[in-house]
Formats: sequence, C-alpha cells, structure tokens
Amino acid sequence: MRAVDIIIKKRDKQQLTSQEIDFFIEGFTKGDIPDYQASAFAMAVLLNGMTSFETADLTLAMARSGQVLDLSKVVDIVVDKHSSGGVGDKTSISVMPIVAACGLPVGKMSGRGLGFSGGTLDKLESIPGYRVDLTTDEFKKQLKEKGIVLTGQSMDLAPADGKMYALRDVTGTVPSMPLIASSIMCKKIAGGANAIVLDVKTGLGAFMQTLDEARELAELMVDIGRLAGRKTVALLSDMNQPLGGAVGNALEMIEAIDMLRGGSPADYREHCYHVAAHVLVAGKRAKDLDEGRAMAEKSVANGSALETLRVLVQAQGGDVSYVDDVSKFERAKYVEVVNAPRSGFISQVHARIVGEASVALGAGRAKKTDSIDHAVGFIVHKKVGDHVQEGEPLFEVHANDEGKLAEARKAVLSAHQFSDESVPPLPLFYE
Amino acid sequence: MRAVDIIIKKRDKQQLTSQEIDFFIEGFTKGDIPDYQASAFAMAVLLNGMTSFETADLTLAMARSGQVLDLSKVVDIVVDKHSSGGVGDKTSISVMPIVAACGLPVGKMSGRGLGFSGGTLDKLESIPGYRVDLTTDEFKKQLKEKGIVLTGQSMDLAPADGKMYALRDVTGTVPSMPLIASSIMCKKIAGGANAIVLDVKTGLGAFMQTLDEARELAELMVDIGRLAGRKTVALLSDMNQPLGGAVGNALEMIEAIDMLRGGSPADYREHCYHVAAHVLVAGKRAKDLDEGRAMAEKSVANGSALETLRVLVQAQGGDVSYVDDVSKFERAKYVEVVNAPRSGFISQVHARIVGEASVALGAGRAKKTDSIDHAVGFIVHKKVGDHVQEGEPLFEVHANDEGKLAEARKAVLSAHQFSDESVPPLPLFYE
Repeated sequence: MRAVDIIIKKRDKQQLTSQEIDFFIEGFTKGDIPDYQASAFAMAVLLNGMTSFETADLTLAMARSGQVLDLSKVVDIVVDKHSSGGVGDKTSISVMPIVAACGLPVGKMSGRGLGFSGGTLDKLESIPGYRVDLTTDEFKKQLKEKGIVLTGQSMDLAPADGKMYALRDVTGTVPSMPLIASSIMCKKIAGGANAIVLDVKTGLGAFMQTLDEARELAELMVDIGRLAGRKTVALLSDMNQPLGGAVGNALEMIEAIDMLRGGSPADYREHCYHVAAHVLVAGKRAKDLDEGRAMAEKSVANGSALETLRVLVQAQGGDVSYVDDVSKFERAKYVEVVNAPRSGFISQVHARIVGEASVALGAGRAKKTDSIDHAVGFIVHKKVGDHVQEGEPLFEVHANDEGKLAEARKAVLSAHQFSDESVPPLPLFYE
Repeated sequence: MRAVDIIIKKRDKQQLTSQEIDFFIEGFTKGDIPDYQASAFAMAVLLNGMTSFETADLTLAMARSGQVLDLSKVVDIVVDKHSSGGVGDKTSISVMPIVAACGLPVGKMSGRGLGFSGGTLDKLESIPGYRVDLTTDEFKKQLKEKGIVLTGQSMDLAPADGKMYALRDVTGTVPSMPLIASSIMCKKIAGGANAIVLDVKTGLGAFMQTLDEARELAELMVDIGRLAGRKTVALLSDMNQPLGGAVGNALEMIEAIDMLRGGSPADYREHCYHVAAHVLVAGKRAKDLDEGRAMAEKSVANGSALETLRVLVQAQGGDVSYVDDVSKFERAKYVEVVNAPRSGFISQVHARIVGEASVALGAGRAKKTDSIDHAVGFIVHKKVGDHVQEGEPLFEVHANDEGKLAEARKAVLSAHQFSDESVPPLPLFYE
C-alpha cells in the first residue's frame, strides 16, 4: 500500500477502505507519511468529502493512534458531554457536578479556548491551584473515588488528531465536516466514553453559522458514534447571542457557581437542566428526559450539586473557598457599566463580536501560546427579546487597561441592535 | 500576505491575483513556504482548476524562479519545439537539423525519458562523447557560432518547477491541466523562446489519452503563450501507435538519421516535415506552411540537414562517424524477427504496451535514477491499416537478455491486433 495511491483514490472521489485509512493514519502518526502527503489528503477530503463509513474509520484510526482509555473497571458507564464551542458557554462547569451529584460518574477531558470561543480549562484555572494536568492514573483514581474529574486532554490521547489539526490550521483544511467530526469524536472515543452527548452550537458565535451546517455536523457525529458502537445524542443549540450573561473566565465561573445555587440568568439555567437531563438519560440514571430534569433540579435545590463542585475543586488542588465566596475571584481594575443608548427591544447581541471583544481584552487567545487574563470580560444584562429603557444598564465591561476598555465598550455596544417592534426571544434549542 | 490565505482562496474556487501567485511561488522556491502548504495548494488547483490568466501567472512565476535566458543578443528569434511525449518520438533529432539548415537557429533544451515515454537526451547519448550538459555560456556560444544546440535543461532554469514536480509526483497532483501546462511552458519561457511549437500527443501511448484532453491542454498552453507574449502554435498528433518504426535509443537515432537521408518510414517522415514547416513559419523563415515544407524537403534532398546534424554532433563532442555509418551504433546481443501469427489488417499497435516493453528491456527508466541500455528496443514493421501475411516479419526485438527478450516478444505481440476487414490508417495529425 502506498500513501500516494490513497490520496489519488480520494482525489478521484472513490471511497477508501478501513485498511487504507488505518494505513494512512498509522503512517502519519509514526512520521512515515510526511506532512506534505497528509495535507494533500486533507485537501482532497475537504473538497471531495467522505462517507459516514469513511469518517467513522478515520475517527477510530485517530482514536487508536495513541492510548485508548479503558474505564470499564473504574465505573459502569462513561458519558462524555461535548460542546462545539461558543461565547459564554460555561455549561460543563455546572452540568458535570449536577450529573455527578445524581450518581453518574463523570470523567471529562476539556480543551482550552482558541479564537473567539472560550475553553473550560481556562475558566477552571481562575480558581488558584486548580490542576488541569492530571495523569491517566490520577484521572482513574479520582474518577473512582470522587466520581467527578474535569481535566485537560492528556498528550497521548489521539496524537494523530493533534498532528493533523496543526497541519489543517496552516493548510486551509479546517472547515471540512468529516475532518471536524472525526477530530471531535476520536478524542471522546480515546477518552473511553461509552455514551456521548453533543451540544452542537449554531449561529453568529458558533463555528457552524447556519442551522443546516450544524445539523450536518450533528448527524455525522451521531453516525460516527453509532458506527463506532457508542450511544451518541446531539442537541442543536443557539449561539447567536452569548449563553447566559457572563463572558470571560472568572466571570463565567461565578455564573456557573451561581447556577448551582439556583441563581444565574434564566437562559443559562434552562440550558444546563436540558443538557443535564440528556446526560442522565444517556448515562442510564434517568429513564426519560422528564425524570432526568427533575433529578437535576433536585440536586441544585438540595445543594448536592454545589457540594460535588467543592469535591471536584478540592480533589484537583483548587482553593475551595472560591466556590463558597465568589468575591474572592480576581477582579478587573476597571469595571464600567454601560447604559442603553436608547429604549427598545433587543434584536441582536452578536455573539461573535462579544467573543472577539473578550479576546481583545485579554480573556482569550489569538495564538495558542498567548497567555490569558482571567479577570476581564463582560456581563451582558439584556438578551434578544428583552425590552430596555434608555439609560438602563445594558452590559458591564471588566478590563485591566483603560484603552482596551474603551475599545471593548465600543465593540460590544455595536454588537447590540435595537428594534421599536417587539422581538421574540431566541430559542435555546433547535432540535 | 499569508500562504494559508492563498490556499483557502483557491480551495473556495476564487481566482488568484498575479501578486498572490508570485508570492506563493517565490516563497515556495526559497523554502519559506513549506512542502505541506504547496501540496495542499496543488490539490486545490487540481480539484478546483485555474483560469488561463492564473495559469499564465503561475507559468511566469515559475519561469522567474531562476535564471531566464536572454538570447536576443545571440540570435534574432528563438523557436522552441516541444513534444508532450510518446513512444518512438525522435522528431526533434530530425527536425532541429532541418530547420537549422533552413537558416533558423535552434537552441533546444530537452528532457530525459520517464516511464514509457522516451527522452531526446537519452537518444543523443547513444553517440559516444555527445555532451548534454552544456553550460549557459557554452549554449550561447554554440548557438551563435553553429546555429544549433540540443542539450539538457540546465539546473537553474525554473527551479520552482522541479521542486513542484517532485512534490506533485508523491501527492497525487500530477494530472492537473494548469499544473501540467505551466510546468511545460515555464521551462520554454525561462529558456528564452520567443515562439513555441507544441506537438501535443494524444492516444494510447500519450499522457493525454483522449483528443478532448489533448485539445484542452493544447489550448491552455496556447493561451499561456499568448498571455506571456510568446507566439505559440499547438499541433495535435496521434500517439495510439509508435511514431515511425524504431523504439529504443540507438534504434531511434538510426531512424532519425535515416530520415535526414530521405529514408525512414513514411509516417515519421511526414510528421517531421509537417512539424518543421510549422517551426519555420513560427521562426519567420517561411511565409506559410507550403513554403516551410518545401524548404524542409529541400534541406533533406540537398544534404544540408544531414550536414547540420554532423555540425551539431561535432560541436557537442560526439563521434561524428556514427552519423555517416549507423552500423557503428551499439547493437543488442539478440535480435529476433517476429513474424505475423496470422494474415489480416493491422487494427492496433498499442503504443503504451510497446513503450512499457521497451522500458522492461532496459531502454527506459522506471525510476529517475535507473541507468539505461541504449541498444535495446524494437522495430515495428507494420502500422495500423497495413495488410500483413501470416509469416511475414511483424516486428524485431533487440535485447541483451534472453529472458527479457521472451517477455518483450510476448508483450509486443499482444500489442498488435488484427482484423479481417480493411482498417483505415490512423491520422498523423488531428488538428
């Protein structure tokens, strides 16, 4: 078998066999197949597509390129919840403690933020001491003993994916459904998940801007999961406006903790309960979504979810007093409340503009090597459909630099659009 | 400007600007743009195509990646003749002396054979001492003094093309019209040609197997020539069966020399006169094809073309006695005449099978680093449309190994097909 013949086959729109895909990914992982062949292959896949079967084969080949976690001796079932990324999406930080409090062990490996989309690890690191670099043994031990782990992806999970992603980033081969779907799913599978709940975001602040694209990605990932023998459920949720109110690392942590106390904005709370219900059903702790939702609400009402977050933070070396007193989180030097320039109904809070303004403040990374500022960000007070009076608080900017504050104020004001007519609120979920 | 953005633009089927193409080729030549970006780019070009304008820009960018010969102080006009490659195509060796004898200086850089297609340099090297590695200064001096040069491509002509071709070969990006056309034309332009006569082969023994493909390539190269300010003419000629009778290096030299003496098979002779007439018109030595053809025929009849070949061989260090006594050419140890197994009309002499059998005998290279055997090859006695009697000589095998001889006999017999009905001869030229 020769790499060039596999490239030619895909170039000529033919379907690749499992053996061919395994050969290519194995050779690429080992370095026998050079980057220049892998990039030509990626471009051929992007332009000519792949079937669900090929994509499932690619996913499994990448999952097998490194260690595949076997957690069957640690817990009875491993459910992974994945968000395709967005602005203000701190869902994992609330939902994981909720489902763990309901008796479903959760061992999750998360990513960092890149571009306008935030990352769970960056948010967790707003708590001093919180470790995101657990070893595989520490991961298993904590999962068994505490029933909850939220850490970074260990280096030896799906190395082919890391190598391929770096190459795609510089060769114009990122926006390919089969490559995106396999990149997400291979890490879930290598991470040992038996069941996977996918929260695919769509809208102005999502990677998939149209509902059709998001649905295509969701369906492809569900197909991959089925072909790989993992129960997979996909939700399509809105990312036209930020989720909840807080955007920025420490601000989002505070909001996620507030949710576990029964507070936080209604859209965020509703989103968390809905996702938690799906995870509990996938993890066979609830027989249906209604039961799952009731369990989730109860874990918040009786404080067990918040207690589980304390357990998590403590187990991973974080200062647990931050969970009890959120005023301890690092606060930005300048906090400015920006008032509504006019009265009217909010018709848009452009999520991508807010996300990019947050990166510009220092809350995110333009490059992988950039360091981040945990304190900065925004609190958005009004959502699409809300009515606002001129002079009423519209949003807050948290900044550590006066020049950046002015820029951010301008950008986030421009992200808001107003209407004289009443505007329906955006749906939280599409399907 | 960033390489990845140029790849993305082509991936998204947009037209690239001259500046973008220059930036990419310059970066690639210098090594600033790595192979993995160039291969992704090549795949995007292969799958999404390029306009004539983009292809002309690519050609000029590759031509400018190294030295561009300026021969305007050496001769008044430089005409290059290029064949897209085939089996038994020794045309340059007859036509160049003909047109030089008609007063048109010719300075040609040729290639070596690869795969089933022979190369002019390999054929010339059947004459002991013949040098194909002239320096640029030697090239210019000989062109000025003798009016004829036939040598190899110097290393510093269009280095981007050499680098790109090596990459295309291993990334499945060879069969792309814009990439093939620009690769051919950039070397002609860097070689200083003012006018270019292209002999594009089509058929079983050509890289372009269908007439449509060959026409597309021919039209694209004529467009490039026009956009690059070089007068360019393209002929479409048949390569379903070998051209002439001889296939193999020394055997083809003998046939090419025979042509200059007024001999050689009729199809080859006709082909040479037709090409020579076009070159003489392109080089402004003849006002039309009829005049060009009459001049060419006269140069053969009066011996001036043969004399010009002597001048060429002598100037480049070759043993000129080979031109006068072709029996001096190295002869294979075994020469077997294979007779027709049946009577009938010849309906096919599959050029590619003959070409590949010739490579198997040792006349060509499977890999660039293979050495070649000048003596081996075939003489095909009958062409499509000819009638043959059972037992009449059909072809000769010249071999240096008995095992290979048997293989070659079998292969070339299978290349011949017979019909009871009369079969029209193949046309020499299509357009």
